[in-house]
Formats: sequence, C-alpha cells, structure tokens
Amino acid sequence: MKALVLEKKESLSIRDFPIKETVGPDDVKIKIKACGICGSDVHYYSHGAIGAYVVREPMILGHEASGIIIEVGSNVKEFKIGDRVCMEPGIPNLRSKETLSGNYNIDPEVRFWATPPIHGCLREEVVHPAMFCIKLLDNMSFEEGAMMEPLAIGMEAAKKAHIEPGDTALVVGCGTIGIMTAVSALAAGCSTVFISDVKQPKLDIAASYPNIIPINTSKDNLEEEILRYTKGKGVNRIFEASGYDPVYPHFFRCARPGCTVVLVGIPSKPVLIDVSFLQGRGIRIETVFRYTNEFDKAAALVSAGKIDVKRLISKTFPFEKSIEAYEFAAENHPDVVKVMIVL
Amino acid sequence: MKALVLEKKESLSIRDFPIKETVGPDDVKIKIKACGICGSDVHYYSHGAIGAYVVREPMILGHEASGIIIEVGSNVKEFKIGDRVCMEPGIPNLRSKETLSGNYNIDPEVRFWATPPIHGCLREEVVHPAMFCIKLLDNMSFEEGAMMEPLAIGMEAAKKAHIEPGDTALVVGCGTIGIMTAVSALAAGCSTVFISDVKQPKLDIAASYPNIIPINTSKDNLEEEILRYTKGKGVNRIFEASGYDPVYPHFFRCARPGCTVVLVGIPSKPVLIDVSFLQGRGIRIETVFRYTNEFDKAAALVSAGKIDVKRLISKTFPFEKSIEAYEFAAENHPDVVKVMIVL
Amino acid sequence: MKALVLEKKESLSIRDFPIKETVGPDDVKIKIKACGICGSDVHYYSHGAIGAYVVREPMILGHEASGIIIEVGSNVKEFKIGDRVCMEPGIPNLRSKETLSGNYNIDPEVRFWATPPIHGCLREEVVHPAMFCIKLLDNMSFEEGAMMEPLAIGMEAAKKAHIEPGDTALVVGCGTIGIMTAVSALAAGCSTVFISDVKQPKLDIAASYPNIIPINTSKDNLEEEILRYTKGKGVNRIFEASGYDPVYPHFFRCARPGCTVVLVGIPSKPVLIDVSFLQGRGIRIETVFRYTNEFDKAAALVSAGKIDVKRLISKTFPFEKSIEAYEFAAENHPDVVKVMIVL
Amino acid sequence: MKALVLEKKESLSIRDFPIKETVGPDDVKIKIKACGICGSDVHYYSHGAIGAYVVREPMILGHEASGIIIEVGSNVKEFKIGDRVCMEPGIPNLRSKETLSGNYNIDPEVRFWATPPIHGCLREEVVHPAMFCIKLLDNMSFEEGAMMEPLAIGMEAAKKAHIEPGDTALVVGCGTIGIMTAVSALAAGCSTVFISDVKQPKLDIAASYPNIIPINTSKDNLEEEILRYTKGKGVNRIFEASGYDPVYPHFFRCARPGCTVVLVGIPSKPVLIDVSFLQGRGIRIETVFRYTNEFDKAAALVSAGKIDVKRLISKTFPFEKSIEAYEFAAENHPDVVKVMIVL
Repeated sequence: MKALVLEKKESLSIRDFPIKETVGPDDVKIKIKACGICGSDVHYYSHGAIGAYVVREPMILGHEASGIIIEVGSNVKEFKIGDRVCMEPGIPNLRSKETLSGNYNIDPEVRFWATPPIHGCLREEVVHPAMFCIKLLDNMSFEEGAMMEPLAIGMEAAKKAHIEPGDTALVVGCGTIGIMTAVSALAAGCSTVFISDVKQPKLDIAASYPNIIPINTSKDNLEEEILRYTKGKGVNRIFEASGYDPVYPHFFRCARPGCTVVLVGIPSKPVLIDVSFLQGRGIRIETVFRYTNEFDKAAALVSAGKIDVKRLISKTFPFEKSIEAYEFAAENHPDVVKVMIVL
Repeated sequence: MKALVLEKKESLSIRDFPIKETVGPDDVKIKIKACGICGSDVHYYSHGAIGAYVVREPMILGHEASGIIIEVGSNVKEFKIGDRVCMEPGIPNLRSKETLSGNYNIDPEVRFWATPPIHGCLREEVVHPAMFCIKLLDNMSFEEGAMMEPLAIGMEAAKKAHIEPGDTALVVGCGTIGIMTAVSALAAGCSTVFISDVKQPKLDIAASYPNIIPINTSKDNLEEEILRYTKGKGVNRIFEASGYDPVYPHFFRCARPGCTVVLVGIPSKPVLIDVSFLQGRGIRIETVFRYTNEFDKAAALVSAGKIDVKRLISKTFPFEKSIEAYEFAAENHPDVVKVMIVL
Repeated sequence: MKALVLEKKESLSIRDFPIKETVGPDDVKIKIKACGICGSDVHYYSHGAIGAYVVREPMILGHEASGIIIEVGSNVKEFKIGDRVCMEPGIPNLRSKETLSGNYNIDPEVRFWATPPIHGCLREEVVHPAMFCIKLLDNMSFEEGAMMEPLAIGMEAAKKAHIEPGDTALVVGCGTIGIMTAVSALAAGCSTVFISDVKQPKLDIAASYPNIIPINTSKDNLEEEILRYTKGKGVNRIFEASGYDPVYPHFFRCARPGCTVVLVGIPSKPVLIDVSFLQGRGIRIETVFRYTNEFDKAAALVSAGKIDVKRLISKTFPFEKSIEAYEFAAENHPDVVKVMIVL
Repeated sequence: MKALVLEKKESLSIRDFPIKETVGPDDVKIKIKACGICGSDVHYYSHGAIGAYVVREPMILGHEASGIIIEVGSNVKEFKIGDRVCMEPGIPNLRSKETLSGNYNIDPEVRFWATPPIHGCLREEVVHPAMFCIKLLDNMSFEEGAMMEPLAIGMEAAKKAHIEPGDTALVVGCGTIGIMTAVSALAAGCSTVFISDVKQPKLDIAASYPNIIPINTSKDNLEEEILRYTKGKGVNRIFEASGYDPVYPHFFRCARPGCTVVLVGIPSKPVLIDVSFLQGRGIRIETVFRYTNEFDKAAALVSAGKIDVKRLISKTFPFEKSIEAYEFAAENHPDVVKVMIVL
C-alpha cells in the first residue's frame, strides 16, 4: 500500500510499502482519511532521531490520524464497518504493572506509531486494537478527528493540573501543544489563561479564543505582566509547554502560593530549578507524558462546541503532496499551527 | 436602620431595627445594594424554623447580598471606600481545627446570616469581616453580585466532584441550586450536563444554556433517558440537588462505574441507599455544606463570561416592596428561579 | 484432578473433576498448597447462591489460595518453576474502559474464582495468568500466602480511606474482614483503631494487636465510647465491615468533621442514611469492591513483620478433610476467624 | 527573664532579656521545660543569617520546645494550668487566603520562632496562642515533646507523599530530618524504607529501626543498591532530605514509574533536574515547607508506640549549659542526631 516513508534523515518518499498486518479478534482495520504533522514527525525528518530513538530503517511517519473502519475483528462489538474514528497511537502491554495501575502511558513497553522502530499511520490503511479507536460524532470532520491526538496532550495536562473552576493559569509556549493546553485549561474551568511566547503571530491565533490573554516575552517581562494582570496575586496553575529551558527561572515566579505546575514541554537537557523557592510557595509539580483515556473526552468537548480545533488547522495538503506538506511544516512559519494531510 | 424583619412565622415587616455594630480593625461596613431571596429565607418565613434552627426573636432575613463599602477598619488594606463587593455570609471561628484544616464551612461554631439567632443582611448597612468580602469587577452588576452566594454552592459541588474535562454529569433537581450546579459543572469541564425535574418551565430555563439537556421525569424514565443519551454508558458525575428523597434509588442507576456522586440537596429525613449497588459500581459519595473559598472564583467566571447568572433573576423588587417580594417567592411559581430585592 | 465440589446447596464432595485448562503463553500452572475458607464460600454452601449469583451446576469452591508454580507459559519472564506464589482470584477484561482506568475490580466482565459459573481453586492444580500471581518471600508460609486475599480487601479499604499518619479509625464489625481492615488501617498510619462487635471472643483476638481498642456494643454504646476515648472529638476514618444494616445510624455519629467513611461490608438490603447529618459533618463516603493492585503490597507488609496474619488462622484441615472444614466453618464459632485447608 | 540570646554571629549569652508579652484572651503562657537545637539555630549562631533572614538585633534562639501551662487566656477552654504541652512555632495570619485554604505554612506573613526578627523560645516562659499548643499524654516526656517539631516535618513529608500501605521509599540524607522522614514514612504505611548518606554512624542509628535499610553512598552506588534490593523495580516514594544538590541526578533514577518525589531538604542554590526523565517515568514532585496540622498526629503516634524519638536524643544539657550545648551541636559529630536542652 502507499505510504509516506522516511527513508532516512531528510529523505522522504511516497511509495508502496509492504506491511503485513492481520486483523486480530480484538482489532479493526481503518482506512486513513486525515493525518496531522507533529513536531516529532518533522524532527525525525530533519534530524533522523529524537534522543535515543534513531531511524535506522525506512519508517512510515504520522501518528495523528482519523479514518473509516473497513474491517472488524471477531470479538469487536463496539464498532462496525463504516464507523468514523480517530485513534490513540500507542499500544501498551496490557499485562504490565503500569497499565494495570491506570498509567499505561508510562508502560516501558508501549509501542507508539512513528517512534522507531514502529511504523506510523500516514498510509492507506492501518490495523489497530479496537480499544484504542474512538468514534467521531457526525458533527466532527476527519481533520478535526486527527486533531484529537495533540488535543489529548493538552487534556492530559489539564487533568493533571487538577483545575478548580475559576482558577487562573499561565501556559508558557504558544505552539500547537501550548494552545491545546490553553484551550483544555479553559474547558477544564479556568476563568482566564495567559499564554506567553516570543512569536506574535502564534499569540494572535491563541488570543482569538475568548479568555486567553497573550504575553509577548520578547517585549514584556513575564512575571511583571502576570502580577499586573492578577493584581499581584499570580496564577494558580502553570503549564510549561515550550520545552525551552531558559524559561524555567521565570515562570515559577508567576506562581501563587499553593500553585500546581505541569511540565508538558520536553527540554533537551536538564534545567535549573530553585527548589527553595518552590518550597516557600508550596508548589507541586506534575509531569505529562502522552495521555491516558483522553481521546473520548477530547472528542466530546469538541462535539459539544466547548473546544474549537478547526482554527488551528493552518493548511491542508492532499496525500499526494505529503512531501511538500512536510517541507512546509519544516519551514516553521510563525503563523502556522497545524499542517494536515488528507487522503 | 431600616430592615426586613421576620417578626415571627408568617409575619414580616419593614421597619427600623436597632443593631449596634462597630467596625473592628479587620472589618468593613457595607451599604447593601441587592439581596436575593433564598429558599431558606422563604422557609423561615412560612414555617418559622428549619430543623433545629427556630426563629424565637424577630430576625432580619437575607444572606445573598452585594453592596458598596462605606467604612474600612484600620487593618484593612485590600478595600477602600466605594469598592463594590459581594459577601460570604458565614463567619467561622478562625481558631478552630476545621478552619485551620481548610474546612471552615463545617466549623460547628460558624455564624451565618439569617440563621437564628444571627441576623441577616436585608437592611441598609452591615458590618462584615473584610476577609469575607469579594470585589466585583466593573462588568458585574450588584444583582449579579448577589447571585454569587447560590452560585458558590454550585461551584463547591463542582469542585468536590473533581470533574475531569470531558466528563458527563447528571444534576437531579432544577431549582436555583440545581441550575447553579449544572452551570458550574459545565464551567468545570463537563461536555454535557443532564438535568432532571418534573417542572417543565424550570427545565426550559436550564435548557437555554448550551450543553444542558433537560429530562422531565414526570414524563420520562430517568435511567432510560440517561442510558439512551449516553449509549448505555451512564454519566461520570451525579449531583443530587433536589433534596427529594424518592429520587435516590433512581439516580444512582445512572452512574457509570467509578462515578462520583455529590449530595447537595438536603433531604428532610434519612434516605434509603443500596450500598451493594454502590460498591459494585465503585461509586464515591461527596457531600456539600455551603462552600469554602468559592466566591472569588465564581465572580471570576461570571466576569469572564463563562457563567451567565443574569437569566436566572426572574423578578426584581425594590426594598420597599420586600414583603411583596417574599410573598411572590413563597408562591413558588414554576417559571421563577431567583427573586431579587434592590436597595 | 481432585477438587472440592459444591454439587448443589448443602452438598459437598471431594472427587475427581475434569477441567480442561491449557497453559497459554501468559499463564502459569500452580499446584495449590493452601486455600482459606471465605464467608462467601460458606454462603454458597449453605444457601446455594449469593444474590444474583446462583449455583446451577456443580462448582469447585475456594478463592483464597497459594501454591507452587509447576508450569510456565512462553511469554512469562517473572516466574520460574518452583516459585511460591499467591494468586489474585479475579481476571478482568484487559480491554475494558474500567481496566484501562486502573479500576479493574469494577470491570463488569471480571471472572472471579468460585463465583458461579466460574470454578474456584480448591483443587490440585489451577492455570492462572502470571500477571495475577504474586511471589511469596521465603519468610512467608503458604497458609499466610492464602491470607493475602482477605488482607487485600482490608488493604484496599485502607488505601481508599486516604489515611494520614496519626489518624484515628473505627472499624465496625470484627469478622475476618473487619480485623483485616483494622490491621491494614494501623499499617497505613492510624495511631489507634477502635473495633466494634457484639462477639467478645472475636474482639479479644482483635485486641491482641497493639493499638486496637475493642468496643463490645452488646454492652456499651458505640458513640459514647468513641467520644469518651477521643475526648469528644470522634474519629477521622470509619470503616463499615459488618454489612449489618442496623449499625448505620450509629457509626456515622462517631465521625469527626471531615471524616472519610469506607463501606466494606455488603448489606443485604438498602440502608437508611441521614444525608443532612453527613453534609453538616463534611463526610465523604468511599466504597470497596474487592481490590486493585494490593496483593504485592499486602505480602510486603507481612514479610516486613508489619502485619501479622498468622494469629488469625484459627484451625487448619488437610485437603482430605475439606468437607469437615466447611462444616466447621459453617458453625460460625465466635472465636474462629479463618479456617484454612492445606494440600 | 533568663534566655539564650544570640547577640550576633558567633556570640551567645545566657542573660536576662526583657520581653513584654501579655496573655491575650486566646493565649496561654508556658513555662519552658525542654528545647531542642535545630540545624537552623546552629546556622544562625555560626553564620548570623539564613538566606534573606539576617540577625540584626540580639535574638533569643530555639523553636523546638515543650513546657507546662502556667496561665490561661479568658477564651481558652481546651487547656488548664498544669497541662503539659508542646508548641507549633509558627503563627500565621489567620485572615490570609493561604490560611483559609488550609495552607497556613505558606502564608507569607507567618511569624516563626527564632526566625529574625521573631524571638525564639529558649527562655523561661513564652506566651503562645492556645490553638498552636498540643497536649502531651502522660507517657511522653518533655524531651520527647520537644521532638514533635522536627517529627512534624517528617510527618508533613509523609502526608504529602500520599503513601499507600505497602509502598517502598527512599530517603536521601540521614540527618535529623531524614530519620524523622524515614520513621514517618514507615508509620504511614511503607513496608521498607531505604536511607542513604555518607556518614556511617548516622546510618547505624537509622538502621536500628526495623525495616529501615541503610545505604552508604560513600561506598555503594545508590541506584544500583536500590535496584538490587527491589529486584529492578525501584521505589514508589522518594524523599530528598539532605538539601545537598549533587544528589539530585542520582535519586530520581531510583524511581519506579509513577513515583512521587517529596523535596524536604532545602538546597542553597538551584539544582539541575532532568525533566524529560521525570516525564517518561510519570514522576510527581511535592514540596515541603514546615507543616500544617501535624503536631497532634505526631504526638499520637509517639504515645501509641508507633514512632520512637527517644533514641534520637543524643545528648541533653541543662539550660545553664546552653552555650556549651550549642558549641557541641555546632561540632557536627557524625553520631549525634539531636541535642536537647532542659529547663
């Protein structure tokens, strides 16, 4: 079948790629209809690796996808052919301690699409466990369905923040994940979410949502702005979504006593943290690694009109132009949030 | 000063009522501008008592109020004369174990407006601790400010439900507290809130909010409707807000495994609960008694436009017509949510 | 193979019972060495049913067991032949929403030993998923290993109570589960645990543990005793472990404001609960249904000497005398806690 | 009255020190009977400051104290003259948001004994709010009572770790706070607590408690030892109690997926933390700053015999020899845990 293959660093091709997948009793087969491009996809494309994950063999890219069910395993009751679905891209070991404790995201054996050596799903069809497929309501498009994956990360972050209705939050970093986190935090009860970045076009997109207030840290001081807006009190919840280590000393200063800080962005090296400051403010830190049980809730909020992901799809390419799409995504335009491929 | 006085059961008067209150160093004096009528106010009026709380002396009614600060104690820094505020009506013992644990609502010594023998605030002025006054933003009216008290109960219920974004909820009972709970649950992250009652006009008001689905249990079976809407799954969170004991066997049946049930309504007698059913479904029960630290968050959500309380103010009376207002409220019209008095 | 078979109500036999079980890749085969008799086993024996679970075909009894691994599936890495283990008796659907959320105990599809129509394990050998086997340290006997099942219920109750070190607790009911809950609550940080019952011999056994204080409610008033011991304050945590509905009005009165109540015992019919009392005291209710992820922790505490279960094994019978053992257990002696069968 | 006065850095005197304290209606006056020497006391003595807290005027030292009530304010009901008590040394603003939320420890206005410019309690008498005095049972000595303050820090750490019974823990640092944390973690439900340090005499003292396993990191590799003891699994809970920043990269590696790490020790400068490692293991970080509501629970566990603090009192001096006591404490003997002064 046709697939977008990362042959090696900086080398993509659209070509026939033989994958032998059989539909097991608990599986479904999905015809892919849309697939977003994630920062990690672009990173594999331009660097050939992310940390310890090195692309050593040609690998199909893509893990943010939606499609139509075209075959159903014998045990599967909750789906039928023709159902429109999005898919959770990671398959944990169902027998591990972590999975049995409800933390399947940190199961060390998880197999995740487009993380070497596991192939991604930017191809015509994929076989996947039915338990990791989520039905799309009629009012949601395939493109929106493909957005459930990055939204699930924002939802996981909001869940881990244990937001109480009426809290205020700061999101550091206004990329896809930052905005997804901001809209999730709002949906989860925040009255106001501040979001900071140095790129004004991305801040403008975020600020188009009600109750998101942008702070451009290339012009303004983050702590000063937060204290000014909150009349000296600071925020209850902070989300680090940039992965950019120099921001660490600054955002902690925006915390109200008792604040929860959620680390979503992945810094490439260890960061300096002032523990005594954290102690004096009674700060708790939660970390996010992918998600557990968030896709159906994310989809429910989008279907209910409480979260809008459409405005974050900056440009759409047909599958035939996937390589162009990747090149466009790799150019890292300041006003582009998500690049989507449709099949 | 002029006040609305419950002389005894079924006997109200508007009259001069001498109260000697001095503004202590941590207090402020407030000129009252609006005061809502609560079901408990009406109950004292029509029955002369609620449970063990018996009106034995003439008592000023009212505890849902807002106003303007007209005097400020010597230690008070966060307010100045002219500030517009709403007020938390209960004053706990600041030295009790409960207060020190963050649970000042269940401090046995709490003194609460219009709960005998403590006078309420439907009068020209009241002295109150500054720590229990909450500033109103310019975009909130005094009438909205007076709604923060019933909204705080809904907010407390939503907080105790530990809602995760995308959860679904059922609220049983569509009175003021039921609707306040439903809008709080939505603000706190629910994708959909079902609300049940037998009075269609109240359900129609609730259904005017997006994502609230009414169920009229005089016509439809609650459990069947919930299972139909949720495709057999049931809801994650249930709020009992009617205090009507015959509903108990029914709403528990709407719970998805792992559901949290929050009991907000106060039944007048013990209710029958099927413990083995709760165990099999892994149900947790939380109870609500007033609120802690909710007024500022409630006001923030209203100012942010995330919760609309205006449509719940069904009729407004001037202070001079307070007795009429109480009589109107006591008539219990099916299309009336909140009756408001302005000064 | 030989097994203890409940042919029908009140009719037991020890006989050859053909069970075709094959060791799948993730399974192990265990030679059973010890098996405790649970109240539910006795109930099936004497009544032929528990609620909706009716014994319609001959069924092997027993679900509290330990043994030696004698065969190992091809995927199993954590065990080898000869390992001594105890076993979790329930096998959930690993693909259900409940399991994936960490709540496999309330998965509606769980298959549980000796719950019709699933056979129990009081037989020579059993095949079981390796993931539900727990290794015994050398300092733990097979009889102690078989006690991990009832202890796991007490541990689950203690976990759900979210005990803070230094809390005080009341356990209502001094049967096996009551005592297991009391020792778990102590191990989990309680300074003192009160335990109430009407049977003095069982209370004497419980009182042989340090920091367990017995209250005989056939002689003394529960609430009065608790208030006397706690100088009027009441307890932080309450565990209902009797399943006897008349105790409900009484134990709630022993709660300190903010108390968590854990319902472990299974009443046979709905119980009356005074919701307004619960609300005024800020009481939360948690329910227990079996357990999740508790066996290894229970075994760790026993191996560490922090929980002693040996003194609760009142009498031991060889497998050949299993029928006598069941008859003895059914006599319900007031000084007997656990009857154990060894193979 | 006589007091131990830190005149300035490295200059102590025992002398008459006039303090005008009146017993307010909610206060008691206490005759001091025992007072421990804390590392912070020694630090003020040898350095004249801790961070921003600089000793600019002569200041009485000491904040770990117990005594006898000799005068009782008019509102105080829970104490009478002659009661033996220990005291919580910090007095928060009872009207602050933090206090009202149950987090009085992080109230920025808290006044804490022996933290400049607030005087300590190593003197004949002290006036203190009754709400921050805790009664000692007859089976606890004044010296043990004075140990409740450092124990409360360990208890706070154990509380914040949300230990589930049967968890395993690592405590990094075997000073007073490290050992207090280890015994609290055990009391809170841990089956085994590992404790690491480079000083063998302190490790020997810790290892005298059952279920505490010492690891001498001057000889052994921390991560290797933990993995060896836990058969490759790591621990569920980690407590950093050394404040020594080079340990940070090492202890995180001992975490099992889903581990909670509690930071108790106060590093003098920012530490490097590998956020991506934390994310991959699903690690949560809690911070400790003093304590809330722990003294009565600490005292209950000591009275119940579940925590032994006596063996940690290494040497006792009479008040007259306080200066010698401080000099002895400042020598930092490897086999000395707590130095106690009695009056």
